[in-house]
Amino acid sequence: MIRLALAQINSVVGNLEGNRRKILQYIHQAQDLSADLVVFPELAVCGYPPEDLLFKDHFVQDNLKTLRALSREINGITVILGFVDRDKKGNIFNAAALVQDRTVRGIYHKQELPNYGVFDEKRYFMPGRETLCFRQNGIVFGVSICEDIWRHGPLLEKQIKQKLPMIVNLSASPYDYGKLERREKRLKDRARQMQAYVCYTNLVGGQDELVFDGGSMVINPQGRVIANAKPFEEDLVVLDLPLVPPGKKSRAPRGCIDLGVKTQTLKCALTPHKERRLPPLERVYRALVLGTRDYVRKNGFKKVLIGLSGGIDSSLVAALAAEAVGCENVVGVSMPSQYTSDGTRADARILAQNLKISFKEIPIDHIFQTYLDDLSPEFAGLPFDVAEENLQARIRGNILMKFSNKFGWLVLNTGNKSEIAVGYCTLYGDLAGGFAVIKDIPKTQVFQLARFINEREKVIPDSVLARAPSAELRYNQTDQDTLPPYPELDAVLKGYVEEHLSAVQLQKICRDKEKIKDIIIKVDKSEYKRRQSPPGIKISTRAFGKDWRLPITNGYRED
Amino acid sequence: MIRLALAQINSVVGNLEGNRRKILQYIHQAQDLSADLVVFPELAVCGYPPEDLLFKDHFVQDNLKTLRALSREINGITVILGFVDRDKKGNIFNAAALVQDRTVRGIYHKQELPNYGVFDEKRYFMPGRETLCFRQNGIVFGVSICEDIWRHGPLLEKQIKQKLPMIVNLSASPYDYGKLERREKRLKDRARQMQAYVCYTNLVGGQDELVFDGGSMVINPQGRVIANAKPFEEDLVVLDLPLVPPGKKSRAPRGCIDLGVKTQTLKCALTPHKERRLPPLERVYRALVLGTRDYVRKNGFKKVLIGLSGGIDSSLVAALAAEAVGCENVVGVSMPSQYTSDGTRADARILAQNLKISFKEIPIDHIFQTYLDDLSPEFAGLPFDVAEENLQARIRGNILMKFSNKFGWLVLNTGNKSEIAVGYCTLYGDLAGGFAVIKDIPKTQVFQLARFINEREKVIPDSVLARAPSAELRYNQTDQDTLPPYPELDAVLKGYVEEHLSAVQLQKICRDKEKIKDIIIKVDKSEYKRRQSPPGIKISTRAFGKDWRLPITNGYRED
Repeated sequence: MIRLALAQINSVVGNLEGNRRKILQYIHQAQDLSADLVVFPELAVCGYPPEDLLFKDHFVQDNLKTLRALSREINGITVILGFVDRDKKGNIFNAAALVQDRTVRGIYHKQELPNYGVFDEKRYFMPGRETLCFRQNGIVFGVSICEDIWRHGPLLEKQIKQKLPMIVNLSASPYDYGKLERREKRLKDRARQMQAYVCYTNLVGGQDELVFDGGSMVINPQGRVIANAKPFEEDLVVLDLPLVPPGKKSRAPRGCIDLGVKTQTLKCALTPHKERRLPPLERVYRALVLGTRDYVRKNGFKKVLIGLSGGIDSSLVAALAAEAVGCENVVGVSMPSQYTSDGTRADARILAQNLKISFKEIPIDHIFQTYLDDLSPEFAGLPFDVAEENLQARIRGNILMKFSNKFGWLVLNTGNKSEIAVGYCTLYGDLAGGFAVIKDIPKTQVFQLARFINEREKVIPDSVLARAPSAELRYNQTDQDTLPPYPELDAVLKGYVEEHLSAVQLQKICRDKEKIKDIIIKVDKSEYKRRQSPPGIKISTRAFGKDWRLPITNGYRED
Repeated sequence: MIRLALAQINSVVGNLEGNRRKILQYIHQAQDLSADLVVFPELAVCGYPPEDLLFKDHFVQDNLKTLRALSREINGITVILGFVDRDKKGNIFNAAALVQDRTVRGIYHKQELPNYGVFDEKRYFMPGRETLCFRQNGIVFGVSICEDIWRHGPLLEKQIKQKLPMIVNLSASPYDYGKLERREKRLKDRARQMQAYVCYTNLVGGQDELVFDGGSMVINPQGRVIANAKPFEEDLVVLDLPLVPPGKKSRAPRGCIDLGVKTQTLKCALTPHKERRLPPLERVYRALVLGTRDYVRKNGFKKVLIGLSGGIDSSLVAALAAEAVGCENVVGVSMPSQYTSDGTRADARILAQNLKISFKEIPIDHIFQTYLDDLSPEFAGLPFDVAEENLQARIRGNILMKFSNKFGWLVLNTGNKSEIAVGYCTLYGDLAGGFAVIKDIPKTQVFQLARFINEREKVIPDSVLARAPSAELRYNQTDQDTLPPYPELDAVLKGYVEEHLSAVQLQKICRDKEKIKDIIIKVDKSEYKRRQSPPGIKISTRAFGKDWRLPITNGYRED
C-alpha cells in the first residue's frame, strides 16, 4: 500500500521564490496527511509556459537553484516535480525530478514535445531519450510529462512493455470547452491500454491567455476515475493506492530506482472520492473568473475598471469581474452620448447597483463636439460615417485610460469573439484595455453566460438581455444593420476560425454563399485589429491568441 | 555547359494567382535569355511565411492547383520552384517541384525545418526523408531548401557522399543586419565542404514584419561568389555554369532523374559578374523602404499618414515613407500643443516642405482642455502626471485615426525600438498606427539613418538632429529626465533583448547596477504595451515581433 498525493498548485510563471514556497507548503500538507509520495505539475518550479524566458541562461540556472533549495528541505516523503533541466552543452529539457531524503534521485526528460496549438515546446526543449521508473513500498512507478501520455510514441510503447502498474503524469494542460472530456477519455484509454493506474496531476490557474483548469485525477486500470481534484482551484488530493494489480510484473525493470519501503504512520483517514465534474457552461464561467482573477492578481493590480455601456457584453464582464476580484474592486464607468438610449443609460447604472460596484457617469458629447469643431476645416462637408463613429469609441477609450494611468486600475476590455472576428470594433476605442475577458466568447454564448449568472442571482437587468445589440454610435443603429443574425454568424465563425473550413464547406452551416463570403472577407481583413488587441482568456479550441497566427498581408481569396 | 537562371521574385503570401503570373513571367524572361534551368525561391507559389493559412486544406489544395496550372505552361526549360506538398494522409511538406516539358518530374521535401527565431515550421510541416537529384546536359544537381544547407544534417551528409557537383538551394531567408555576412560565410563554407557550386535563390520583398533581402548568388567550389542578384529588389540572374569540376563523380547517383540534354541556342551574351554588396547602414535603409512599400502596396493602401512632431523619429519615418511610396502619397500632420516648442513646430513644417509631402497642422490644446474640464469632477486637485501626458498622445492618435478611417490612409507609427523596449510610449497614443516603420531601430541608429538620408539630400533640418529628444508632453521635458543617455540605454538593451544577457553580464556593458536593474524592470513591465503595438520591420537579430515571445504575467526578477 502507498499513500499518494496530487498537489494541484497555481504556479506563477517566473516567480521562482513564490513557487518554491508554495511547493514546500503543499509538501508539508501532504506530509501532515501521511502521504508517501506527492506529485506536482509540469514545470511547477518555474510555471507554465515560461516562453522565451527559457532563452535566458540565468533564468534556467535560477530554476535549478530553486530545485536544489527545495530538495534540501525534502525529507520523509518522496516528491516528483516539474522543472527545466539543462545539460552541459546548454540544451534544456522539460523535466521531472524525483526527490527523496534531500537528494534528487532521478530525472526524467519529456519525450513528446507539443508544437501545435498554443504550444511551442520544440522552440525551446530537446526531447528526452531515457525513461524513469522507481519502486517505492514494492510498487513500481513510471513517470511521464503531459504530451507523453497523449501520444502513442516510443515512451508509451516502452512503458506498456515494462508492464508498469503505476504511471505518474505531470501536466500543464490548459482549459478549453471540450478539453475535460477529451482528456478524461484519453487518460481512461491509456489506463486500460497500459493496465495501470494513471496518476495525473494538472496545473491550475490563469497565465495570460491560458487557464489551467486543474481537475487532477487518478484512474484505475479498468478506466474508472477513483479520485479527482477540484476544478479551477488549488487542491491536494490524497488517496491510498491498493496493491499491485494482478498480472503485473512484480520485478522492477532494469534501471529502476529503488526508494525502499517507508511506511507512514497514517495519522488520518481520507475522505471518499467525490464526483467534481461541472456542467460545461459553468466551466466556461469558472475559467473566465479564474483567468481574470489571476491576470489581475499576478500582475499586481488591485482594482479594475470597465466601460459600462448598458449593453450585454459590458454587463457580463462587470459581473465576472465582481466575482473575480470582489465588487469593492470594480469601477464601472458609463460614458453616454447623444446616441445612447435612455434605456441603456439607465441599465448601466442599475447593473452597477445590482453588482454593488462603484459607478461613474461621464457624458462624452462635449468632447466629441470639440473634436468635430476643431477638425472641421479638414472634414467639412463630408458625411458622418465610421470615422465619427470610431471617434466616439476612442474618446471612451481615452477616458478609461486616463483613470487607469492616474489610479493604476486595470481596464478590462469587453469585446466578444464575434465582433473581434469580423472587426466590428474600434481599434484604440472599444478594443482598448489591458485584458479582454470575453474575447473568446461568441455573442450567442455571451447571452448564455448572462442568463447563467442571473439564475444564481439576478444582477443583469432583463432589458439588457432583451434589447437588440447595438454599438449606439449613431441613431437607431443595431449590430444587425451590418452583421448577420448572431446565431448564424457564430455558427459560420466557429467553422471558419476553429475548424479551418472553406467557403464551400461552410455552406453546410449557412446556405447563403454571399453571406459566407462576406464573413470570410471581414475576418481576413480585420487581422490588423486583432494584432493590436489585448490578450484574453482562451475558451474555445482556437482563440485569437497564440493559436491564431495568420498573416496580415494575405492575398488569399477562395474562389 | 548549362545556362542557369535564378529568379529572385517578390511573392505575395496567399496571392496564388498573382504569384503564378509572376513566376510565369520570370520563366519567359529566363527563356528569352536562353536559360536551360531556372530556380525560384522557397514556397514561391504561395509566398513565405504562409503561417496558419497552411491549416486550411483548401489553401493547400489551391496551391497544388496553381502548381499544376504552372506546370502545364512550362515547356523548353527546366523549372524548380517552391510549393506546399501534401500526402494522402494530409501531412504537408515544404517542397520543391522539378518541372520539365509540362510535367512534374520530381519533388523534394525539406528535411531541416527551422523552429527558432521567427520560424515555426515544425508547427506545420513534416520533415522529408528522400533526396532529389537530377541530371541535365550531363551535370548532376542536388536540391535543398533553405535550412537544409544551413545545418549539417543527414541530407548534407548524403549530398557530400554523393559528390554532387551542383547544389540548388531554394530559400526564403529574411534580412537582419548581420544576415548577409552570416549567409555568405555559411554558403561559402558549404561550397568548399561539398566541393560543389552552390546556386542559392532567395526570396525578396516585405511580408508583415519580415523583409526578404534577395541577394541570390552562385558560389563556386573554391568558395567564391561568381554571380549575384540585386539586393532588396526583384532580379533575374543568368549565368553559364562550367563543366563538372575535376574530381567529381561523373556518374549520377541512384535515383537521379535524367532530364537529358537540351542545348539552347544562346541568343545573348551575359553581363559579367558585378559586386552588389551594400554598406550595412544602406542595407538597413533599403530594408525599411522595401518593408514599408510592400506593407502599403500588398495591403492595398495608396496613401500613408504620419504624425509629424518635429522630432527625429517622425522626420525619419516621413523621409522613409516618401522614398517608399512617393512624396505625393504621404500626408504629414503636425498636432502641436502648448508644450510644443516653436522650434519643433516649425521643423515639422520645414521637413514636410523639404520632402514635398502634404502637410496639415491641427493644434490639440482646445480638445485637451475640454477633456480636462469635463473630467475635472473625477480628477480635481490631483497633480498633472502621466495620465495627462498620455491623454495628449491619445488625442493625437485619435486625430490620425480619424483621417485614416475617413480617407482610407494607412497611419505609419513612428516609435523607435529604445522607447518601445522601456515602455516610453503611450498605448493608443504614439503607439497607434497600422505599421511601425522604425520599431526595430534603436534611437542611436535613428540618428545614423537620419544623417545617412541627409548625406544624399538634406531633407531633415539640422535643428531636428541637434535638439535633445523630448516627448513634449509637459514643459521643459526631455527623454533623459526619465531614461539613461541613449548610447548607454541602447547598448544595454541590445544585450538584454538580443543576447539574453543577465543583469550581471550586462555590467560588462554598463557599470551602474542600479541603472541596469531599472532598465530591465522597465522592459519587463512594458510587455503589455508591446503586445498591443503595431507590427513593424525586423532589422535586428531579435525584434519585438515573432521572435519575442515573453509572458506578460511574469514574476521573474533576477537577484
